[in-house]
Amino acid sequence: MTEPKSCCCCQREDLPWSGRGATLDISGCRFSLYPMDSDFVSIILGALEKTDTSAVWSQSDALSTVYRGKLPYVVDAVEGLFINAFREGVHMALECQFSKGCPGDCDGDSFLGWEGEAPNAAVVAGAHFPVLCKIALYPMGVPDYIDHIAKVWHMAEDAGLQPTSIHYATRLTGDVQDVFRYLESVCRLMEQSVPHYILHCTLSVNSPTQE
Amino acid sequence: MTEPKSCCCCQREDLPWSGRGATLDISGCRFSLYPMDSDFVSIILGALEKTDTSAVWSQSDALSTVYRGKLPYVVDAVEGLFINAFREGVHMALECQFSKGCPGDCDGDSFLGWEGEAPNAAVVAGAHFPVLCKIALYPMGVPDYIDHIAKVWHMAEDAGLQPTSIHYATRLTGDVQDVFRYLESVCRLMEQSVPHYILHCTLSVNSPTQE
Repeated sequence: MTEPKSCCCCQREDLPWSGRGATLDISGCRFSLYPMDSDFVSIILGALEKTDTSAVWSQSDALSTVYRGKLPYVVDAVEGLFINAFREGVHMALECQFSKGCPGDCDGDSFLGWEGEAPNAAVVAGAHFPVLCKIALYPMGVPDYIDHIAKVWHMAEDAGLQPTSIHYATRLTGDVQDVFRYLESVCRLMEQSVPHYILHCTLSVNSPTQE
Repeated sequence: MTEPKSCCCCQREDLPWSGRGATLDISGCRFSLYPMDSDFVSIILGALEKTDTSAVWSQSDALSTVYRGKLPYVVDAVEGLFINAFREGVHMALECQFSKGCPGDCDGDSFLGWEGEAPNAAVVAGAHFPVLCKIALYPMGVPDYIDHIAKVWHMAEDAGLQPTSIHYATRLTGDVQDVFRYLESVCRLMEQSVPHYILHCTLSVNSPTQE
């Protein structure tokens, strides 16, 4: 059996990552950036380099990057990265997966030592552009997961993000900062409501598709 | 309140899609194709056009496309599309979300009338290229979701897809056909095991990143 490199949603005793589980306040986001442009390598690497990841633990592989730390700093790093990657006229999507509370998580691979202002706050504060978004929320291990999803739908209405229901997801639209404030508030609510959640999001800019 | 266009994971009575739920054998896949190339529009539209969707119900919007029908034909359509979009040397990712059993689903927006050979079988049969993949499985509403995830991890081992655990997901690698056979077998197992599941996948080809 292959030895997993890190943790996974599993504490079964017949698997090598059995009996794990984080005791610390670790939120995480795994994301992939997809600039639909032949210059994608420099857009992705440039954004990763420009983004200040001092407040999170970070690791990249061929498919995605993961940031782990305190929730506000994880959100700050992902938002900073998305804004740093934005180019006028270049269609780009960010696929991301916020999560906390996986019973197979571990205390390692994280950084929780940051305090005060988020490192990318200044970059974020100056950015405004419209974003198309879809989200899918998974509160795990609880029979009433539907109630949590309903609450989050209403939160999107209250935030002015015009939620519409599509098969398997909810569509939203709004300014980049409003979308990220909403995503952060959903994560915050979920970590207070359920032991383990995952929030999948797609953020798209400069789509050539007219609806 | 905005009237949802279709269904969502919610049967709360205070929401407009309350009391719904499919009674038919409808699986679905929502997906987005991301060719990292300035020619992305023709790659995406060309693949959508070349793919035979006779056996599924299909709808596209600015963010993604959804296919709904019987599981083997949904998988056939997504696999056919991915293969039709593949171009030698072009880095491309497919983000997809297979699902069945959402309590807010409906019997509409589906096609279940196809029988016999899958429409894209010939296209699929001739295709072989290596794929990097990550998956995250969410069996909903059950306390033992971890056991299902563990089983699927072992299935990936048995399928020779070399699963490795990363934060919030499992990485796999293999030939495109082996990856899709595995995804289909996971969906088949889940529909037999839990009332509602979602399987998120990222499939990547021609990545310039060396690991």
